[in-house]
Amino acid sequence: MGKSLVYPKRESNTMNRYKHRGTYDLGPIHSIVNSAPVLHVSFAPSPDDPFPAILPMIGQMGSFDYPSSGLGDPLDCYLHGYVSSRIMNLARASNGEGLPVCIAATHVDGLILSLTPNSHSYNYRSAVLHGYATLVTGEEEKIWAMKMITNAVVPQRWEHTRIPPDGAEMQSTTILKVRIVDGSGKIRDGGVSDEKKDTGKSEVTEKVWTGVVPVWQTFGEPLPDKLNKVKEVPEHITSYIATANARNQQYAVDAVKIPLPKEEVH
Amino acid sequence: MGKSLVYPKRESNTMNRYKHRGTYDLGPIHSIVNSAPVLHVSFAPSPDDPFPAILPMIGQMGSFDYPSSGLGDPLDCYLHGYVSSRIMNLARASNGEGLPVCIAATHVDGLILSLTPNSHSYNYRSAVLHGYATLVTGEEEKIWAMKMITNAVVPQRWEHTRIPPDGAEMQSTTILKVRIVDGSGKIRDGGVSDEKKDTGKSEVTEKVWTGVVPVWQTFGEPLPDKLNKVKEVPEHITSYIATANARNQQYAVDAVKIPLPKEEVH
Repeated sequence: MGKSLVYPKRESNTMNRYKHRGTYDLGPIHSIVNSAPVLHVSFAPSPDDPFPAILPMIGQMGSFDYPSSGLGDPLDCYLHGYVSSRIMNLARASNGEGLPVCIAATHVDGLILSLTPNSHSYNYRSAVLHGYATLVTGEEEKIWAMKMITNAVVPQRWEHTRIPPDGAEMQSTTILKVRIVDGSGKIRDGGVSDEKKDTGKSEVTEKVWTGVVPVWQTFGEPLPDKLNKVKEVPEHITSYIATANARNQQYAVDAVKIPLPKEEVH
Repeated sequence: MGKSLVYPKRESNTMNRYKHRGTYDLGPIHSIVNSAPVLHVSFAPSPDDPFPAILPMIGQMGSFDYPSSGLGDPLDCYLHGYVSSRIMNLARASNGEGLPVCIAATHVDGLILSLTPNSHSYNYRSAVLHGYATLVTGEEEKIWAMKMITNAVVPQRWEHTRIPPDGAEMQSTTILKVRIVDGSGKIRDGGVSDEKKDTGKSEVTEKVWTGVVPVWQTFGEPLPDKLNKVKEVPEHITSYIATANARNQQYAVDAVKIPLPKEEVH
């Protein structure tokens, strides 16, 4: 019997609304993060600035120390990409435990079209993590994280490119490692859920169409670059596109079929 | 000649990296926000908590005072949806100018698959706004914002549902109005951009396929609810799905064809 780990409930990640949709389980939360093409990362830019900052970043969760870890195990979040010098400098300057950040991942899976504007909603999956970000300095861990993040965009892509990165590339690439202290997830699936005051009125139900429009991310046909010299699109790309498109559509359609719990309002 | 308004550059929204991709123009920034199905909203939950919070929310920009405003005019951002009581209470308690928030909207338009992991990227559009959030208390403005947000999910949906909202629905719905103080956008389009050290090496170019995989959001076939009594899916839904799917795909494919500026690295 496997154990199921959960994040501790602190004030900052405890849900008050639609609690039955919430989860603190590491597995579902990490799965939402690792399947998101973009993570939104928030931090306080300076004590003088009243506004938090948000950066869209590419990232992935994994464990460098325990490579055999699964999605349900404790993982770190590695971030790469459009790291402005501000977040890098803040993380570099944060002696000790690191820069406090919040990481959010959200998937929209369907439009819930119901009898009243109030009962309209989305099917969605969202995850939020809090943790401390530091720069990865060890070369081995940095390459490991770069490979993990590249292969999260297209599996096996790393191995099919010119590797390893040279000295200049290693220098110009920054990887942030976020040690997670808490997290939570929310999943809304199912169909329409209207209130009796409307479902019992034929003048309403005969006028308003209700149902769900599934929503998913589609990958189109690969368009070769003008300098590309490889005739056929390689199998690691075509098979990923086919798999991801089928999986994304299937999730959005399957999500509709799950009956809502009785206490659901909308 | 129309004038083109731009957001003021402050330290918190000034870009240091890939400046040529950046924009401070109101039109493109507001367009990115208003076409995003989800906005990520960040705020500081309490002086004791080191971590910012992020909420995924549904929102839309518009002007209640100047209804004829276009996307290039000064607009407020109205937020609705999974408003935890925390953000509502904070906005309610923020006497005076409101709760400082950061709002981010991001679209992924393509995977840039290039010769090296370092030159991999996304085609994307992202926008970030800073502003002060207060609760909308006027009934007329609240209904106007609810209608605008509902019709941003599916145009004309508001008019095709049971309206107006009753007293209980008005009470249970909260709308935040964010007065924007600055904003910025970033748009990455075009194709692959590798460095000469790789494009000149046949042992690399003959091995690695390079190109772009367009990415877009697809709306599937509407699935009627078990209680739905309207036989045909109404035209306001079917025509939106057809239009949005064609437009989303077209944008992702067209984005690849735009040549990159010469100074582009990746």
